[in-house]
This record gives sequence, C-alpha cells and structure tokens, in this order.
Amino acid sequence: MARLVLKFGGTSVAGIPEIENAAEKVVAEVARGHQVAVVVSAMAGVTNQLVDFCRGISPLHDAREYDAVVSSGENITAGLMALALQKRGVMARSWQGWQVPLVTNDMHGKARIEEIRTVEFDKRLSAGEVAVLAGFQGVTPMNRISTLGRGGSDTTAVALAAALKADRCDIYTDVNGVYTTDPRIVPNARKLARVSYEEMVEMASLGAKVLQTRSVEMAMKQNVPVQVLSTFEPSIGSDLPGTLVTREEDIVEQHIVNGITYSRDEAKITLINVPDIPGIAASVFGPLSNANINVDMIVQNVSHDGKLTDMTFTVTRADLDRALETLKNVASLKDLKIHTDARVAKVSVVGIGMKSHAGVAQTMFAALAEKGINIQAISTSEIKISVLIAEDYTELAIRALHTAYGLD
Amino acid sequence: MARLVLKFGGTSVAGIPEIENAAEKVVAEVARGHQVAVVVSAMAGVTNQLVDFCRGISPLHDAREYDAVVSSGENITAGLMALALQKRGVMARSWQGWQVPLVTNDMHGKARIEEIRTVEFDKRLSAGEVAVLAGFQGVTPMNRISTLGRGGSDTTAVALAAALKADRCDIYTDVNGVYTTDPRIVPNARKLARVSYEEMVEMASLGAKVLQTRSVEMAMKQNVPVQVLSTFEPSIGSDLPGTLVTREEDIVEQHIVNGITYSRDEAKITLINVPDIPGIAASVFGPLSNANINVDMIVQNVSHDGKLTDMTFTVTRADLDRALETLKNVASLKDLKIHTDARVAKVSVVGIGMKSHAGVAQTMFAALAEKGINIQAISTSEIKISVLIAEDYTELAIRALHTAYGLD
Repeated sequence: MARLVLKFGGTSVAGIPEIENAAEKVVAEVARGHQVAVVVSAMAGVTNQLVDFCRGISPLHDAREYDAVVSSGENITAGLMALALQKRGVMARSWQGWQVPLVTNDMHGKARIEEIRTVEFDKRLSAGEVAVLAGFQGVTPMNRISTLGRGGSDTTAVALAAALKADRCDIYTDVNGVYTTDPRIVPNARKLARVSYEEMVEMASLGAKVLQTRSVEMAMKQNVPVQVLSTFEPSIGSDLPGTLVTREEDIVEQHIVNGITYSRDEAKITLINVPDIPGIAASVFGPLSNANINVDMIVQNVSHDGKLTDMTFTVTRADLDRALETLKNVASLKDLKIHTDARVAKVSVVGIGMKSHAGVAQTMFAALAEKGINIQAISTSEIKISVLIAEDYTELAIRALHTAYGLD
Repeated sequence: MARLVLKFGGTSVAGIPEIENAAEKVVAEVARGHQVAVVVSAMAGVTNQLVDFCRGISPLHDAREYDAVVSSGENITAGLMALALQKRGVMARSWQGWQVPLVTNDMHGKARIEEIRTVEFDKRLSAGEVAVLAGFQGVTPMNRISTLGRGGSDTTAVALAAALKADRCDIYTDVNGVYTTDPRIVPNARKLARVSYEEMVEMASLGAKVLQTRSVEMAMKQNVPVQVLSTFEPSIGSDLPGTLVTREEDIVEQHIVNGITYSRDEAKITLINVPDIPGIAASVFGPLSNANINVDMIVQNVSHDGKLTDMTFTVTRADLDRALETLKNVASLKDLKIHTDARVAKVSVVGIGMKSHAGVAQTMFAALAEKGINIQAISTSEIKISVLIAEDYTELAIRALHTAYGLD
C-alpha cells in the first residue's frame, strides 16, 4: 500500500465527462489499496472567464479580491470530483484551501505556501477517504483567500505530497510523459522513463510545458518523486506508465543528454559602443532589474581598443519594448547604438551526465555548424548548454541535435 | 447617519454592467454618510449552471458537496462587487460566509443561520469600509460550507441586518415595490408605500414573488424594517422609493385590505363517500403528512345520513400524483371515490385591518357572485381570506376584488 497524490490539470477536468474519466483513474488507485489525495485545477475556460470578469471591472484590481474570485474555479471542480468519486462508491470529500488549512504568505496572486496542516487529512486518508483538494489556492494568516500564480495546482500537489509524506505525486495531463524533445518537431522523439529533478528544472524553465519549474524545484527540495502521465490513455500494464521525475541516484542508466528544448520567447538586444569601464554592466542591468525585466543570456565582447565594446543579451519578447525604454533613460549610455532582433530562438541540450563528460558542447557546435546555423550567443550551466540562433532554424537545429546526441 | 444592509438579487447582478449599476446604488448610500453592508446573489445563470453540473454527475448528490459547489456563484459576485466599489473610490472588501463567520446548522442545502459573529464587521463598518457578503451561504460547526436554500440571500441580508442592528435592510430587485396585486393583471394596481410584516408574510407565501416568506418572518421576529425597491430605477427624491415592510404600529394609515394575491399552483382532491367516523381525518392526512405532502385548504361537508361524507382539500400540483398514490394505499379508504381537479386557483385578500373590521368576507363573496364565479373552498386566517375557484376565472376574480376593496 502506498500513499499517492494525484493531480488533474485543466484539460483533464475540462467538463463533466472528463471529470468522470479522471475519477476512474482515482478509483483504480484506490482499488489497488492505495491511500489517495487528489488535487484539481479549474474546468477548462472557467479561470479565464473569472479573470475576464475582474479585468472587465478594473484592470488595476485589488489582488485580494481577484484571488477570492478566481479561486472559485478550483472549488467547483473539487466538489464535482468528490461527487463523481462518491457515485463510484468511494468515500471522498472536497477541501478548499482554507479548510485544510493550506497557509500561504500574503503575496496575493503569487503567494508562497508556508504550511499545510495535515492532521485531519492524515486521519481521513488512513481511514480510506479520498481527499479532493482545490489546487492553486490557500489562505493567508489574515484569513483571506490567496492564489499561487501560474502552475499553482502543480505546486499544490507537490507541496501536499511532501506534507503527507506521500510515496509519489502523479501529475495527470494531456501528454503521456516527458520527451527527449517536442514530438511535433521530431516525430521519433522518445519518452523518457526517468529524468532527474535537475534536468526537469532546466527542461521546464527552457520551454517544455509539461511541468511548472516551481513545482519541480519544490519536488527536488522535498524529495517527492513526481510522475507525469496522461489522463486520456489507459494505464494498464505498467506501474509507471509515464515519466518519473526523481533523484539522480535513483536513475540507473544515465544518458549524457536527455533532452533538447527550445524557446521562441526570446528577443536579442545588442548595445554597440559601450564604454569599456568598470561598473558599466551594473549601469545597464541595474535599471533593467529595477524595472523587473528578466535578462537571460549575456555576452560581452572583448574590447579591441580598450575603450569601447559591444554587449549582447536577451529578454522575453513581451519585455522588449519596456527594456528599450529603460535603456534609453540610462544617462551613461547616451552615445551608444542599440540593435534589436526579436526573431531569435534559444535551443538547449540538457543532461545530468554532462557533469562528468567532456566534449558535450563540442558535439552541439559541430552539429549546428554542419547545418550552417550561426550561433549568436552561448550560455551554459552544469547540466545544460543553450545557444541563441535565428528563429527560422529552430526545427532544423533541434532535429540535428536530437540525432547528434543519439536520442532518435 | 444610518447603518444599512443592501441586498442585490440575481437580476440585479446579472452581469458586469449590472454589477457596476448596483455598485452605484451602494456608492449613493455611502455618499449620504451611511455605513453600508452589501449582500449579493450569484450572477444570472451561474447557480443553475452549477446545479446542472452536480445533477449531471449524480442526481443523488451529497448535499455537502452540492453546497461547496453551488456557493461559488455568490463568492464570485462578492469579489466583483468589492472591485466595482473600489474602482469608485469606496473602501470595500468581500466576505465569504466562513470568513465572517456566518454559522449555520448542518442541514446542508437548507441550513438555518445560528449565529453571525460581527465583531470584525462592526469594526470595519464603523471605519467606513463597505462589507460585501456572499449571500445564501454559511459555514457549519464542522467547518463545511452550507447553503440556506431558496431565497437564501434575502434571509442572509435580513439576518445580517439584525446582527448588525442595522436601521434598514434594502432588498434591491427588478420591481420597484410591493403592489396591491399583480400589475400584469390589474394595470392600475397601486404600489404600497408601507405594508406590515404580517401582511407581507401572507402575500409572500400566497404567491407574491417579491420576498421569500422565510426572510419576512425573520425580519418580523427581529424587527428589521425591510424596503423592497428597484435596482433599475433612479432613486432620486424620496428617501424611501420602494415599499417599506415594517411593524403594524409604524403604519399610520391602515387599509382594510392591502393586497389581492393568487396562486395557480393548486390541485383539488375530493374524497367521496368517506365514513363519517372519529379519526377519519387523521387516517387521511396522517399518511400525506408522512409522505411530506403539504395539504392547504380543507373542507369537510356535513354528513347527511350520519354515515358517509365528502372531504375536499388542496395540494400543490407537483404533489398531486404522489398524493393520489398515498391515498390509494390507505386501507380504511378502500371504497371511496376520488375526484381530482388540477385546474383550480387560489385567490386571497390580505389586510391587517381585517382584524378589526366585520363584513370583509361578505364583500369578497358578493364581488365573486356578481361575476358568476363559484367558490369551491374557503379558508381564512386573522388577516386573509382565500377562496378556491376554477383557474379560468383567476384574472376576472382578481380585477373584481381589486375594485370591490377600493384598491384601484
């Protein structure tokens, strides 16, 4: 007997038929003798409708009222899921964040979980009752409703699994696992049976849309094994039909590179004729940071004459206009030229095996060179290498790299 | 400065434009220097949608989960109303039932309010903040969400007004007050400036759809003046543009009859050849009561031969089939004949002045006789007289009575 947390996202509970289908997944785990807690998102479209209502009244809405309104979507699904389970003869009840309570700080709209008091949950799970928790929400010390922001239901599920000392957190979604790359681009992309937390963090933040980075980081910190699997495929046969995200040491067979990810959400800014003096980087990136603009890849060229240099960095496309506005106001940069290019993409190879293998970057550069793809910027971490290329070459680069690292 | 509770029903908060309009009504009262608490219903269609979801999963749903789902509608409106007020520069926050807390018993789906803890409310109202409470809901001692059943938001508003010792509870709706009768039937029906609680209870339960009986009974018991008024008419000029429901002694000019009401929701059952022996009424009405069938008007004829008699009574049309089924199973009634007539209507005259005036019934009977309308049954209370007539004559009877009692 294991203790499991099952999380169903928006497409998995899109309407009544989908909720009934998700309930069957829960019933199957109960039938195997497991203790089960369920975390649900809002039904498809509900959250957007509620957000539109708030925006319709005021674009500058009070985040506390926004949270009170928007959290209703998950409450509705939780109650309906409990009804669907009861209909199948399974003891179940719904829980709203405040009922647990799942306590967060008071950063409304993007609150952080501080504590989940699971005494009552523990008792009821042990008695065989399925707990259905509304995801994405909590209650502040002021007794106001909070929401956790993007991917909040994943975070709820992982945090609940940690608090309940669950054996696993299963994230049901509309794909059946984590792939070596986007199967729409590389049809023979392989599903990974296991992937390490570290790799998943890189893959999540680099554009693989399966899991939110924040929830993977939490799973890693709390050591909660997370399985990504499909709500819409029968899970007969294998105990672990999806992809298990787990500790590096629990993965027997390590590949050097496990995934190729990409992001088209990039824009490149090049500053030309920047004075090559101490403190210049701070004078550029300080104001951007103050404007809450995230800078990603940064390349500074070696100055040829010791006086002027060039500097290239990327921001998200949504931030591009604001970034340019901010830079124009930086007095010390008055005489420089600014070039921008929003038609760039970031392609990354990710693999925990890189730590102990040399030549991984060289394989990447050679594969791209062979296809005549120019690298505009490079950034690396212990377990990933990212390059910035012209957007038009994205698919070509991904296919070349998938083959070069033997992932086909 | 007064303390007011303003309640907005479903049509008054049907969508965002209506919520904005209702917010203007609140702002006007705040501008007059009043302390204001607001109670809101769900937006039009939302509750029905949520009820359909629950029924879609299971017709025999757990009332606790039903309540958790259905109460979301009011939570959404409460948050949106708070946003609409803030946009207008008014301090406001939303409250869900559990946040107050508004404590009810655990009769889910039709819970009764046990206590409203208003310490925090009191403090904030006195500080000038508008409290927006989600109507129709509360929290049980088990910390589960409950709903109050039909007309629950009216009940919430009146109970809150009582708990806050408010000077008045204003029920905003889509009519501008209580009329002497249905203006669709009698175009020159008059709006009543004031009506007593007792009359309103009779008029509410007899078919005037303006206020739920239960909330009027609570207002009477707690002595809360209630005004019924329109959300959609400008309330300039008069301090009391609608109808004030208040104590008899607060109404200066009393009419003998204040209203003519009707109900088409009646079905007549006549039992022929009932043995005229002691206990026979109990043997008929006991089983009906056990089957939870409400019997309204009862007429037993005088027995001519001392052995057999006839008995007529009414039930709601929805209960007719079940009533007949129940009666067939009553062994002691084996040899009687049963006649039914679902094409009947109940027409009533209501007036607190009746208590002290003779001849009120005679006026009714004469007016109906003059139009050739046959009375099939009569029932009376201290302040009303009801007659059962053929449904086809409903409008004719109402018009004749409206004139006969000088209400035109």
